[in-house]
Amino acid sequence: MNYQRFFEEAIDQIHAERRYRVFADLERIAGSFPKAIWRSNGEAQEITVWCSNDYLGMGQHPDVIGAFQNTAGKMGSGAGGTRNISGTNHPLVELELELADLHGKEAALVFTSGFVSNEASISTIARLLPNCLILSDELNHASMIEGVRRSGAEKKIFRHNDVAHLESLLQAAGRERAKLIVFESVYSMDGDIAPIKEIADLAEKYNAMTYIDEVHAVGMYGPRGGGITEREGLADRIDIIEGTLAKAFGTLGGYITGTKSVIDAVRSFAPGFIFTTALPPAIAAAATTSIRHLKTSQAERDAQQRQAARAKEVFASVGLPVMPSETHIVPVLVGDPELCKMATDRLLGVHGIYIQPINYPTVPRGTERLRITPTPFHTDALIDVLKDALVETWDALGIPYNTEGKPAVAKSDRIIPLLVPKSGG
Amino acid sequence: MNYQRFFEEAIDQIHAERRYRVFADLERIAGSFPKAIWRSNGEAQEITVWCSNDYLGMGQHPDVIGAFQNTAGKMGSGAGGTRNISGTNHPLVELELELADLHGKEAALVFTSGFVSNEASISTIARLLPNCLILSDELNHASMIEGVRRSGAEKKIFRHNDVAHLESLLQAAGRERAKLIVFESVYSMDGDIAPIKEIADLAEKYNAMTYIDEVHAVGMYGPRGGGITEREGLADRIDIIEGTLAKAFGTLGGYITGTKSVIDAVRSFAPGFIFTTALPPAIAAAATTSIRHLKTSQAERDAQQRQAARAKEVFASVGLPVMPSETHIVPVLVGDPELCKMATDRLLGVHGIYIQPINYPTVPRGTERLRITPTPFHTDALIDVLKDALVETWDALGIPYNTEGKPAVAKSDRIIPLLVPKSGG
Ligand SMILES: Cc1ncc(COP(=O)(O)O)c(C=O)c1O
Ligand SMILES: Cc1ncc(COP(=O)(O)O)c(C=O)c1O
Repeated sequence: MNYQRFFEEAIDQIHAERRYRVFADLERIAGSFPKAIWRSNGEAQEITVWCSNDYLGMGQHPDVIGAFQNTAGKMGSGAGGTRNISGTNHPLVELELELADLHGKEAALVFTSGFVSNEASISTIARLLPNCLILSDELNHASMIEGVRRSGAEKKIFRHNDVAHLESLLQAAGRERAKLIVFESVYSMDGDIAPIKEIADLAEKYNAMTYIDEVHAVGMYGPRGGGITEREGLADRIDIIEGTLAKAFGTLGGYITGTKSVIDAVRSFAPGFIFTTALPPAIAAAATTSIRHLKTSQAERDAQQRQAARAKEVFASVGLPVMPSETHIVPVLVGDPELCKMATDRLLGVHGIYIQPINYPTVPRGTERLRITPTPFHTDALIDVLKDALVETWDALGIPYNTEGKPAVAKSDRIIPLLVPKSGG
Repeated sequence: MNYQRFFEEAIDQIHAERRYRVFADLERIAGSFPKAIWRSNGEAQEITVWCSNDYLGMGQHPDVIGAFQNTAGKMGSGAGGTRNISGTNHPLVELELELADLHGKEAALVFTSGFVSNEASISTIARLLPNCLILSDELNHASMIEGVRRSGAEKKIFRHNDVAHLESLLQAAGRERAKLIVFESVYSMDGDIAPIKEIADLAEKYNAMTYIDEVHAVGMYGPRGGGITEREGLADRIDIIEGTLAKAFGTLGGYITGTKSVIDAVRSFAPGFIFTTALPPAIAAAATTSIRHLKTSQAERDAQQRQAARAKEVFASVGLPVMPSETHIVPVLVGDPELCKMATDRLLGVHGIYIQPINYPTVPRGTERLRITPTPFHTDALIDVLKDALVETWDALGIPYNTEGKPAVAKSDRIIPLLVPKSGG
């Protein structure tokens, strides 16, 4: 066994499969969101980010940055220990109260990330329950899949958002057996929404616990930003609501909310919660500020929905293949991994527009796409600039448009030569 | 299955086993380290923290806080995406270069925590290597154990720091089979150090890869803070050096360093790295500032060693059962879980001194202890105050002293009534 050669060959293979990823080196500019400085080959250039998960731009909100800075000034840059060993800082205690309130639950527990919250919570709950069967949506996020695997529990995958399939699995398991249904509210690659009410009904009928990932919905949906479960008035019918502090809330960390006893069990048994340094107080305070702001301010949510709707409309009007989406996520179909990568390289190199190619295995082969996330700060003018850049790119690379709606301008008129061939992210 | 009752009973059982943990709500005070405000039952009180893992007080260093605040002001409070999707911020790129340099390795990779770095890296490396055998020290940290489990690879546990045992396992596996030895440099509960050279020799002899966790050593040992491997000149003989940014460096996050191809493989294959939001730029910049400072400043390391040595000496001089430790960690034996918990409750309630009880399963039964971590900011005067408080507590609760060295003063003279019976952490 030659270890060095082994790993070199593993990397060569990723290159050969064209799956090697180069991360774009970005420096966001607070106050100029969605602008950022992109560094490549020793050069720095201002670009526009169109694929941020800082969905509402809260990561640059003056109050949020202020809380972050003030708390660091008062309490330092780190927590200094695990939750149990001197790491439970007061802002974290306040954050957990705020989160429990956000979802109308008895208690909340904060983790270092949404990934860890899913992995640690799903695995712990399913491991504690005797002979638990996990019912998991086929499109669940990698962090949920890790949690399911790590639990060691038996699992059944149900077809995406397919309640009939879920019911047949629940029925086969019977009312008596412990069952945990894990699913997301907003699926982030297609922007579709789970049939939460139907799943809650089934859970009641067959006596199953329910665990929902609202990572792509918290802050953005519901009158106080409590997610789709709040918008639909279903929060009290779901046992555990999980979310992140790193997307719409603009900071870092993840959490679960639920009854005091479930939260206490995860708190007491999950290694991924227990044996790790707590979030810094500055992060917790910034998150709390962000959540509180979005509990009362509807402006960001409205603006996001408006700009997302407008982007879909503008792109569709020139025949760009916007995929159907019920949410703020705007997927545009490319349908080929090479083209998808070339398109994003071109958008960055020629147009100074940063969007990540979304390829297999993140999405099924043949549905490779650009995943565009308009925020309140992506103005109508920016949407138009993006539209033109997309059309130029579609033309230059010969990416298919929607059958109807193909723009009238001839291809050759619009092609800008690709001056800076660079590898994207 | 009554889920609610099930979890209530699980919690009741932890209570019955006296293992229920209440986290102390602390507010650290930058500039007054190791002081903090402790909140309990609606009251706030200033206390001294004696169990922080902010080992050098870097979490309150003005330069570190300054970098944290400035970067947040310039770039906002979050990264806004995963590493691949617009989350690779420039300070993170710089941090990885800094870390590779710190350990003299080709490359580094930053994770959201030390826990995640261990879990994701160990599991990914062992999963990639065909038919890999993991050889794991029996006292390895929970995060390493999770990594080992998650890999699905065969594992053999070797007795703590026992090179003869390790050799017999290596020999049995043979030179040809892929093997990964995972161990720590400083074991944090006893403060002892692994025989790194001997393990590196064995790895060479039997052609095994080596993975060392330097979480409790980085920043604190070696002329530039590169850990025990730097101090002993062994960094180039270990394949992967892992560390945290959340202890001596005073911030948050974890990392691995190694050859470019190994790092690239983990970067490309580890779900725990790929599918999670990147660390905020402010955290990365603060960590880089801290690492750079400790690369050139020896003052903090010297002061820490001096205060740790002094604490051991002062405690031993009055007969307190200081356990042998080669490092900055000062374990004081209690030997009983109830007494250990009562001692820490008393230290907090009566003396305003915060130390966590370390009980089973963190340490073997019968070795329950206080784990004291003197920093450069724990002055000689504070050490004396702690010594008196420990003696008062030892006397009040009848905890055994060392056979020799029992102080001369009669018990009853020194006992302060426990006015505020509170549950500790
Ligand atoms: C559905 C879903 N759950 C969880 C996560 C992880 O959250 P975090 O970035 O806070 O780790 C993500 C993406 O990052 C996600 O898309
Ligand atoms: C040996 C060891 N490794 C890893 C970790 C995890 O590091 P972090 O706190 O950065 O998650 C810890 C403790 O927290 C530890 O003691």
